[in-house]
Amino acid sequence: MTGRVDGVCALAGILGLMMASPAAVAAPTQPVASAADIIAAAAPSEWRTLAADRLMVIDLPKGRVVIELAPDFAPVHVARIRQLVRSGYFDRAVILRSQPNYVVQWGLPEDHRPASAPGPLKAEFDAPGLLPLEALPDRDSYAPEVGFSVGFPAARDWADGRSWLVHCYGMVGVGRDNSPDSGDGTELYAVTGHSPRQLDRNITVVGRVVLGMELLQAMPFGTGDLGFYRTPAEMTPLRKVSMAQDMPLADRVRLQALRTDSESFRKLVDSRRNRRDPWFVHPAGHVDLCNVPLPVRPAP
Amino acid sequence: MTGRVDGVCALAGILGLMMASPAAVAAPTQPVASAADIIAAAAPSEWRTLAADRLMVIDLPKGRVVIELAPDFAPVHVARIRQLVRSGYFDRAVILRSQPNYVVQWGLPEDHRPASAPGPLKAEFDAPGLLPLEALPDRDSYAPEVGFSVGFPAARDWADGRSWLVHCYGMVGVGRDNSPDSGDGTELYAVTGHSPRQLDRNITVVGRVVLGMELLQAMPFGTGDLGFYRTPAEMTPLRKVSMAQDMPLADRVRLQALRTDSESFRKLVDSRRNRRDPWFVHPAGHVDLCNVPLPVRPAP
Repeated sequence: MTGRVDGVCALAGILGLMMASPAAVAAPTQPVASAADIIAAAAPSEWRTLAADRLMVIDLPKGRVVIELAPDFAPVHVARIRQLVRSGYFDRAVILRSQPNYVVQWGLPEDHRPASAPGPLKAEFDAPGLLPLEALPDRDSYAPEVGFSVGFPAARDWADGRSWLVHCYGMVGVGRDNSPDSGDGTELYAVTGHSPRQLDRNITVVGRVVLGMELLQAMPFGTGDLGFYRTPAEMTPLRKVSMAQDMPLADRVRLQALRTDSESFRKLVDSRRNRRDPWFVHPAGHVDLCNVPLPVRPAP
Repeated sequence: MTGRVDGVCALAGILGLMMASPAAVAAPTQPVASAADIIAAAAPSEWRTLAADRLMVIDLPKGRVVIELAPDFAPVHVARIRQLVRSGYFDRAVILRSQPNYVVQWGLPEDHRPASAPGPLKAEFDAPGLLPLEALPDRDSYAPEVGFSVGFPAARDWADGRSWLVHCYGMVGVGRDNSPDSGDGTELYAVTGHSPRQLDRNITVVGRVVLGMELLQAMPFGTGDLGFYRTPAEMTPLRKVSMAQDMPLADRVRLQALRTDSESFRKLVDSRRNRRDPWFVHPAGHVDLCNVPLPVRPAP
């Protein structure tokens, strides 16, 4: 870790808006730990290694996308996705859709779907019980309580005792039809714009893109309804989709995430809420759940 | 306008998450006007034609980006930008930076900056007075009052009598150094991820991308600090930057936006707040300012 927010810190984009001129890199008048400083100073024990059996690796023509799955929230869907990946199901998949400020979605094109598709699954829009949560004190306009649960942005409702993953940028969910129990894990989407929080508790969320968001973001917008592509020629193929656990060691993705229950993460959140760098003249004193970076780095 | 949300409705991505299978396009059990239906049914008088002297047109190697400028909020900066564009200043500009879930920024690379650069401008982080606003009833976690002002997402504070443009996806602002009065209009950025609301009232916002967001989104993430590119080879050139008013008629961009003070827009906002389509099982009953689409179409 060099101290800078590099390409691997794929969701960390919340720093200042300096000009590229020399003045932009002048030392601040008072020393303030930047987000990059806090991340660089985190102890090795504050990082967790992402488990290989939870990492879905998508090789696109222009590079690699890695998704951390969240079995704590959607055990049945995650098991299905893992099974689909290991069976090679997604190796014939394509990007089906890219809708501006919304999502990119992938799966098999209609004429490639196997006759015997896997059956639909019971919805896992939220999980029973109040799952562990590092709650934010900041108010949220959609949910009664939000924060981080096992590394993911999440929410809870004490009134009904349910917990759920929140649709922030980079989150991954399972497409479904009108019936809540119609998703089968064969079509997945990732959020590419402003967090579509209206989807929370309406669809099963299964994880988060931890590497390669720029590849999904770069998909041309589809010109069909809802951003679907109209012709096969517009659809980017997923060359190979693997669980990291099944990849040859030499090629295997090894990533670490800053633990959301660590002291350094607490400092990072606070530094985002109360901006102390001299650039800010009107610090918000507030941070939106989806504006908190979730740093990821290659395992040392 | 065909009724679908096409590529020109660049910020309209807030529809459902259907699967691509035939079931996904089955008729809903009860007829509900979709966002696309509401937009398609809007009367001609509910659309405003974007003024050619407010449209900044950036021709990138892969296509065209169009920005609507907002002189009501930042008159001095908008005048400066228009002057820079008309003088050809940006024709040697490049994409300087792409930071994940944050912004894309452009300007002249350091070794191409003219010796006599234009002087810095006084900050226009907010505007004096309570500018006209179609206020949302929905609570906002950053500002006391939010809504739409002359077609832009905006906020007001009655306590200090100021109004400002809000950093939603696609909004464009002016890079500056640590001094609030250091921006000079030569470096601009566009928001490409979750709305960085902490920037509100900390930087001068001058407009919104109304066409071509996918081209900015597709820029590879920079690997330098804050997503800046390290080498000239990584920087995409801006081939030509023009004010629409100066373009030959045949090539001129002619766009319309749905008026934010129209009845159809009010219906559109309500349809986003209270989802009545049968797909939703937990309608949020709330809409975030930055989740409201601002439809744009080619002028008929």
